[in-house]
Amino acid sequence: MKQNIYDDPKFFKEYSALRESGITYNDFVEQPAIKSAISNLDGKSVLDLGCGTGEFAKYCIENGASKVLGVDISANMIEKAKKENAHNNIDYICISIEDLELENQKFDLVISSLAVHYVEDYANLIKKVRNLLTKNGEFIFSTEHPIVTAKKEMNGWVKDVDGNKLHWSLDNYQEEGKREQHWYIDGVIKYHRTISTLVNTLIENGLVLEKIIEPQSIPVGLQKMPKLVNEKRRPSFIVIKSRNSF
Amino acid sequence: MKQNIYDDPKFFKEYSALRESGITYNDFVEQPAIKSAISNLDGKSVLDLGCGTGEFAKYCIENGASKVLGVDISANMIEKAKKENAHNNIDYICISIEDLELENQKFDLVISSLAVHYVEDYANLIKKVRNLLTKNGEFIFSTEHPIVTAKKEMNGWVKDVDGNKLHWSLDNYQEEGKREQHWYIDGVIKYHRTISTLVNTLIENGLVLEKIIEPQSIPVGLQKMPKLVNEKRRPSFIVIKSRNSF
Repeated sequence: MKQNIYDDPKFFKEYSALRESGITYNDFVEQPAIKSAISNLDGKSVLDLGCGTGEFAKYCIENGASKVLGVDISANMIEKAKKENAHNNIDYICISIEDLELENQKFDLVISSLAVHYVEDYANLIKKVRNLLTKNGEFIFSTEHPIVTAKKEMNGWVKDVDGNKLHWSLDNYQEEGKREQHWYIDGVIKYHRTISTLVNTLIENGLVLEKIIEPQSIPVGLQKMPKLVNEKRRPSFIVIKSRNSF
Repeated sequence: MKQNIYDDPKFFKEYSALRESGITYNDFVEQPAIKSAISNLDGKSVLDLGCGTGEFAKYCIENGASKVLGVDISANMIEKAKKENAHNNIDYICISIEDLELENQKFDLVISSLAVHYVEDYANLIKKVRNLLTKNGEFIFSTEHPIVTAKKEMNGWVKDVDGNKLHWSLDNYQEEGKREQHWYIDGVIKYHRTISTLVNTLIENGLVLEKIIEPQSIPVGLQKMPKLVNEKRRPSFIVIKSRNSF
C-alpha cells in the first residue's frame, strides 16, 4: 500500500507553510548533508526519487547535471514542481516510487531525500535502484535514523516537569516494520529498519558502501532553530552513499 | 594510555568466574555473531587482537586455520591462554594492541572480539590492521553498540517502580570519546564512537564494508539467560566485517 499524505489537503497546507519558512530540519540538517555526499554533478544524469516540489532537481541542474528526472507520488507536489522549478532539462512524473518502471534507462546518480522511510519493501527498492544505475553510478539517500524510528510509541524525548529534555527513549529496535505517528494528520506511516538492514541490503545487491553521514545542524541552523542543538544528543537522520560496482 | 583492567585481581577473578559459567552475553549473543561472519577458516592465517584466554584462537585452529597469533595486554589472560588453549600452531603474545608491531607479517583474517571499544585511537588501529591484511584479507570485529555506549551517565534502562524496563535511554550520541563505568571495579574506560565513524574510517583506509550484524540472542540463550530478550529492544553489540580491497 502506497501512502500519499502529501495530497491530504490539511497536511499539504501545513507542510508547504513549513517548507516555505526556510526554517526546517531539511534546510539545516538533512539537505546540507545529502548535498555534501554528492561527488560531482557535472554532466550527470540524475533520478530524484520523491522529488517533492523540485528544489533539489533545480539544484542539480544549477550545479552542472545534464538532466534530471523527478518522481513523486503527490500530484500537489508535482504540480508545484512544474510551476516553480521547471527547466528544459528536468522532467517530472507523478507516480509512486514503487510503481515506477523505467525500461532501459540508466542514471549516473539516483538520489532520494527522506522518502525511503515511506517505502514498505526496501529490498525491492534497492533492486530497482541498482538496475537504474550506470556502472559506478551513485545512490545517495537520506532517511529517518533508526534511533529515531525504533520505538513503537513515538514519544522520543523524556522530559522533566519543567519540560527539559532528559534523554531520548529507544525501544523495539529489532522489530522492523510499520510505525504510525501524528504529523499534522493522524496515521502517517513510516517504516523502521535497523542500520544492518539499511546497509546489508545495499551490499547484497552489488552496491559498495561509500559513506554514512549522521548529520548535525550547520551553524546557521543553531542560531535560527536553537532546538537543533539536540541533534548532538541523538541523530534524526542518516545519509547513506553507495556506488554501483558493476 | 592503555587500559589493562584484566590484570586487576578483583576484576580478573570476577570476570573469570563469569566466563567460566558459560552463561554470558559473549556465549549467546556476540560469539555466535562474530563466528557467523567468518567466510572460511581453511588454511587461513589469523591474528586475534584481544585474544583473552585463547578460546577463539583454539576455535580457529579446530576449524581449519593454519596458524593463529593471539595478542592480549593482560598477563593473566595470556598465562591462562598458554595453559588452557595451547597448540603448536598458536602463538600468544602479551602486548597491547596499540604497541603491537609486526613488520612484514600479513594475515588472511584479523579478528577482534569486544576489544576495539578499549582502544582510544580508532583510526590508528584501522591503519595498522589494514597493513597487516593480505589482499582480500578480512577484518572482522565486534564492539559495544553505539546505542549502548553513547550516554555519558551509563544508566541505560529506565525502569518503573516495580523494576520493569520501560525503555533504553540514549544521549550524547555525537560526543565521541571516553565513557567511564563500573564493571566489577570502578573506572573501566571505554570509547564511544558513532556508527558513521566506525564505518567510514574503514572505508577511508581502503577496506570494503561487507556486512554489519546487530546480533540478538541465539535460542538457547533466551532459555538460559531470560534477560537476553532485551536484545530485541536495543542491541548491545555490533559486528562489522570488512575486506582489504588492495
